[in-house]
Parts: sequence; C-alpha cells; structure tokens
Amino acid sequence: MNIKTIAGNARESAATVATAPTERKNAAIRSMADKLALGKSGILAANEADLAQAERDGLPGNLVDRLRFGENKIDSRIRCLNKMRALPDPVGQVIKTQQTTNGLRAERVRVPLGVILMIYEARPHVTVNAGAFCLKAGNAAILRGGSEARRCNEFLGELWQESLVEAGLPGEAIQIVSGSHEELGQLLQLSEYIDLVIPRGGKGLIAAVAGNSKIPVIKHYAGVCHVYVDDDSDVDRAIEIMLDSKCLMPEVCNAMETLLVSEEAARQLPKMIEAFRTHNVTVRGCETTQAAAPDVEPATRADWRTEYLDNIVSIRVVKNVDAAIDHVNHYGSHHTDAIVTDEDRNAGKFVEQVDSAVVLVNASTMFCDGESLGMGAEIGISTDKLHARGPMGLEELTSYKFVIRGDGHVMGRA
Amino acid sequence: MNIKTIAGNARESAATVATAPTERKNAAIRSMADKLALGKSGILAANEADLAQAERDGLPGNLVDRLRFGENKIDSRIRCLNKMRALPDPVGQVIKTQQTTNGLRAERVRVPLGVILMIYEARPHVTVNAGAFCLKAGNAAILRGGSEARRCNEFLGELWQESLVEAGLPGEAIQIVSGSHEELGQLLQLSEYIDLVIPRGGKGLIAAVAGNSKIPVIKHYAGVCHVYVDDDSDVDRAIEIMLDSKCLMPEVCNAMETLLVSEEAARQLPKMIEAFRTHNVTVRGCETTQAAAPDVEPATRADWRTEYLDNIVSIRVVKNVDAAIDHVNHYGSHHTDAIVTDEDRNAGKFVEQVDSAVVLVNASTMFCDGESLGMGAEIGISTDKLHARGPMGLEELTSYKFVIRGDGHVMGRA
Repeated sequence: MNIKTIAGNARESAATVATAPTERKNAAIRSMADKLALGKSGILAANEADLAQAERDGLPGNLVDRLRFGENKIDSRIRCLNKMRALPDPVGQVIKTQQTTNGLRAERVRVPLGVILMIYEARPHVTVNAGAFCLKAGNAAILRGGSEARRCNEFLGELWQESLVEAGLPGEAIQIVSGSHEELGQLLQLSEYIDLVIPRGGKGLIAAVAGNSKIPVIKHYAGVCHVYVDDDSDVDRAIEIMLDSKCLMPEVCNAMETLLVSEEAARQLPKMIEAFRTHNVTVRGCETTQAAAPDVEPATRADWRTEYLDNIVSIRVVKNVDAAIDHVNHYGSHHTDAIVTDEDRNAGKFVEQVDSAVVLVNASTMFCDGESLGMGAEIGISTDKLHARGPMGLEELTSYKFVIRGDGHVMGRA
Repeated sequence: MNIKTIAGNARESAATVATAPTERKNAAIRSMADKLALGKSGILAANEADLAQAERDGLPGNLVDRLRFGENKIDSRIRCLNKMRALPDPVGQVIKTQQTTNGLRAERVRVPLGVILMIYEARPHVTVNAGAFCLKAGNAAILRGGSEARRCNEFLGELWQESLVEAGLPGEAIQIVSGSHEELGQLLQLSEYIDLVIPRGGKGLIAAVAGNSKIPVIKHYAGVCHVYVDDDSDVDRAIEIMLDSKCLMPEVCNAMETLLVSEEAARQLPKMIEAFRTHNVTVRGCETTQAAAPDVEPATRADWRTEYLDNIVSIRVVKNVDAAIDHVNHYGSHHTDAIVTDEDRNAGKFVEQVDSAVVLVNASTMFCDGESLGMGAEIGISTDKLHARGPMGLEELTSYKFVIRGDGHVMGRA
C-alpha cells in the first residue's frame, strides 16, 4: 500500500480511537489475547518461515535468537495484554486543576498524542506490546518491524486488525509496515500525519531515524550504567547490588557495565572481583584494580564507554563521590546509575549531580523498569529529556489540553 | 565568537545553573531588574540606533513598532522580572511518588532541560523575558534575536552577563547570538550541546527552523481561533465573549478570527454583526451571514484559514455543534477555541472532540494565558503536542529524573 495512504488512514483512525471508551479499547486488547492463544499455530508457522529465511540469509545468531517467537513468548505476551487491560486508562485524567480568583476553572486533561510510529528490529513481541500500549493510550500506531520478521509481524498485524474491528474500532488504528528503507524514509517526512516516532534498536538505527525524521523522535539509546561503591559501605550489600545489576539480565540496557569503587572502598576489591568470578563475569580493570587481583584484564578508555550487554564488567577506582559523579556524567549514557553508600550527604550529591534518567541509592539498577516505577509496564526507556525521560508507560504516550470553564467570563472585566 | 564555542560554553554553564540554589538565580534576576532601571539611557540609545538603521533599511512599519523598546516597555519588563522572582522554583519539585510493595521509594523529581535556544524576531523584550525564564528553570539560554535588534539585544546581553556574574553564576548562562543565517544553521546542528529550540515569529521562520534543526523544536505557530455560539445561548453573554475574544487584543495569537453560529442561534446574527460594527470590526461572512445584515463582505474559503491579527472577523453559520467541531478541527490551528452554550451535553462534546491546546466553555479566548492558567507568566504558547502544549511556563522548561531509594534492594530477591 502507498505510504501516504497508510499514514492518512492512521491519522483518520486516530480521531476515533482518541475518544473511544475504555471498554472498547480493552475489548480489542482482550480479543487480541484470545487470538494469540487460538492462533498459536499460525504465528509459529509464520515465525518458522522467518527463521528459515534468516538462516538462508546467514543472519547472526543473536539476531536469530531475538527473532524467535516461540510458545513461551506468546504466552508471556498474552499475560502482558491482560495486564495492560487492567491498567487505568490515561485518557481523560485530570492532571492539574486551577481555580482563578474570578471563578474560572482550568483543568489540564490528558489526551492522546495522535499517531505513533514505532520502528524496531526483529523481536515480533514488540508488535503485540507496542500495539496494545498505543491503543490503550488512545493513539493509532504504525508498527515498522525489521524485514527479517516480516511474515510473523504481518500475521500479528492481521490479528490486530480483526481484534480492532470486532471491538467496533477502525482496523487501521494498528497498521504493520514492512516496506523498504526508502519507504521508511518517506514515512519520516510525514509530520502532518504522524506525531511521534519511537525507534528501538541499535545505535545506528536510532541515529539514522533521528537524523532523517521531520517528526519528533524519542530516542532509546544504549545504557552504559554504573554502580558506585562509596567509602565504608557494607561490602556484602555492595556485592549483592553489583551482582544483581550485572548478572540478573546482562542483556538489558539497564544492566551495570562499569563498577566504580572509591579509594577507601578499594580494599574490598579482591572480594568483589572474586564474587564476579564466581558468577562467570570477566573483569577488566584500571591499574589499581589489576593490582588487587591476579588475571584482571586491563580496561582501556574505550571500556568506559562500552555497553557490553554480556558477562563482562569494567572496574575503575576513583578518588571519591565527586570523581565518581564526574566519571558517570562524562563516560556514561545518562541512563541508569546507582550509588551504594551509608553517607546521606554523598547520596544526596550523587542524586542531584548525576545527570541520568534514573538514579538509585542502595538499590540495583534492575529497578529501572516500568513495573517498579508504578507504570504497570513500559514501552521503552527514553534517553531523551524532552517529553519523556526514563521508562515510558501509558501516560508518556499522551499529551494534554487545557479545559477552561467559565460563566460568561471575559478578560476585559476580569 | 565561534558558534561551537558559544554552544560549548552554554553546555558547561548549564551544569552549574542546573544545581544553583534558588536565591542565587533570583539574585541574578533582581540584579537584571536593577540594571534595567539604572541603565535605561544606554538601552534607549542602543534601541534608537537599531530604529534608525531600520528606517534606513526601509523596514515595514509593524516591524519597526515591535522593535521599539521605550521607557514604558522597559518598566513593564522590570515588573515582569520581579514577578518571575516570586514564582516558585520548579527545580527539585517532586512530581510523583511511588512506594513499591517491597519498600523501594521512587520519586519523579523535576530537573532543568539543559541548554535552550530561543529564536525570535525584533522584540528586544524577549531578551529580558526568555533569559529570566530559562534561568529560573535552571537552564542555560542562547538567545538569537533578529539582526534588526542587534544593538539593543547585545546591550541587554551585557547586562545579563554582569547580573549573572554578580550573583556568582557563570556569565555564559545567558548568551546573545546575532550572527548570520548560516551561523544559525550551524547552531541548529549542535544537538550534543543544545537540548531544545523554541522559535517564535512568523510561520516562515518557524517552519525553516523546524525543517533544518537536528535539535528538538517546540513550535509556536499561529492561532486561527474560534468562538462557537450554540443554540439558545444567551445572546448578550455570547456578544460579550465574542467582543472580548476579538477586540481586546486583536494582535495576539489567541484572539478570535472566526465566529461560528449555529443555525438556530443565527437569528441573532443582526445583533451580533451590529455589535462588531460598533467596535469597528470588519465583518466577512458566509451566505447566510451576508443575508442577515447589509454590507457584509463575502468570506471565501481562505478566510477560514486566516489569522487576521486585526479588526476583522469572519462569520460562518453551521448546522449544529457537530458541524462546528468539524469546522474547528478542519480549518483551525489547534490553538484556542471556545463554545458559548447552556447545554452541558454540547459543552462536553466540544471539549472532548475539539483537538486544540486550549478549549473554553462560556469564556473568552483571552484566558489562554499563563497567568489565568496558574503559571504566573508564559514564555510562549506551544502548538505542538509533545512535551508542552498551550501556554508554557517554568515547569514546561524542565524535564525530570527518577530517584529511587532502597536499602540494599536487589531484583533477584525482590
């Protein structure tokens, strides 16, 4: 289909979805969950075909892994949809109320953004998630997955369209696009039809989208996340937090990549390094770290900027909390950073001065997630400051309007 | 000075201003107010020189008017700065608190955006206002006024720099740029230094900035604003609201440009048109309107999209509230629109379905201003939906970070 037709249909359906009652949106989400359960064989077949093609094309193994959409993953999407249904509808919520002295009542009321374009690689589960997120927040969605997942995504798109129509909503409220890079380039020019672009994937993809888009983009860049262990902190607690931050899910963006240790806490380095090794984590370190234990690989400057997403950690000894803050702000990616400390003053400094979306005190970086932050779920983690920062939930997919109610009020005699 | 140096200095000073105590920011604003009072002769001289140049260059009269920065306007800026000082500091405000079941406390804390680039035409008063706004919200500002106001803006920029330094803040936190279009083009590429661009001025300027910027832009487009008079509404109240919306300040973006009247209310058209004429407003109308009173100029389709910013109004008779909503969404600019009605159902429909930043019931469009909406003042009125919509106050110049405090919390055993 023509790109402009797709965008135009999305814009048109957005007007209907924007004012659709919660029950109707939930009905579509419930229907999609049912179809995932009933249509498993079809989904698996489409996914198998994508996987076979990927093998023929010689796709790298980690990409093939992300492409796989097996029975377990489908079940987990069904649970996710059911959770989404239970979340409060953000549309119509009153964010703020003002009453002026002359009796005018002004409210800020949450409204949908309009049309959201999601761009992502592989991972067919995003097609389920992102569709539900956009819909629940009253938006129309254009979902542009990677070409390697085309068959599975298009199958899921058909299920979405049936679900929407059954719920009495326009089927075009969730559309799948699997076109060429040129067509994606065209889509990114259509700022009159599309209100927001959310690219998720590698740095190259995100930078290319941001560089070519006439539509506002909320970027989801990588996480070079830190845990800083301050003077005199309890070493066992520090080790628990650093292991959780590194090893629980090393492949996620909020996993720790660099451990910073204050000069004073550095005498505990042998114990910390030992703990990492017990958990099969390769340790790279600065000179002090290398001196603290045998067989520590040297960390170069490039390490301080690297998102390993793997069982590797870099360790650097820094003078104190100030030096730690400087390191985090200079080398980090302003994503998620934690301090382990017993000193309220140092905690306060770290919280105030570290310029990251999520800053934690005595807690694992794993808590940078929508569930922990009261959003129920998340569509992604923004590394931007405008509109939404950090984990994005339903509210972050909305805008607002001012509603002012008077009784014949005019400014000339106000 | 080199454009990159300016942007780099802004970025560096932003880190200091971001964590500066409220008193220090207020001290700089107070100092600026003092300097405006004491330095009047210097400001007037610089402005006179700009005006003389403008005359030599044959600038159009309305531009010369906006360029003029006389004693009254300076006094009004001093009052504005004093008001700004009294406003609460948005930085550090806790927007939201969540307590998870396992005792983790998460807060959303307001933080500055960073570096803001304002681009505007003529109007030296923006140099005072925008500087104070950005500073109070903890941001560094790069102010790029029109070349026609260069001397006055640079003089005001020097006052800002002295004021900042006296308050113990970096002078580069407010910088004036008066360079060429090429240099502006370069600035708009520096997304690593600048976080937000706010262009204010004609549609051409805003579109050019938005089209060329690698930095996020919040646009302040024109206002094609409506008042819709519903069936059976009290005609005297309707007339008061429409006159206030049109005549109080016809030159502002939230002034009414088109009056919509329901078929039933249309029998009151002669009285309405008469009221406009008493206030020297030229009336253009649809056929029904033309039939209702002599000498009504015909309104063409172009009128429905025109922001007159003058004593002209276009009038169209529409079937009912649904037709009014369609007209507003189709021809309007999603800025500020009002309904006059006694019917709660129609008011609700209008409020829900009109896709504008500000929607009013039985009140003048003049109330779309920062003061009425509890912001104290405003830096502009966004016609975008992302980040900020409608009047923008101090809070709209901020972002947030998540601060999570635990007591050794790890997800693995959460």
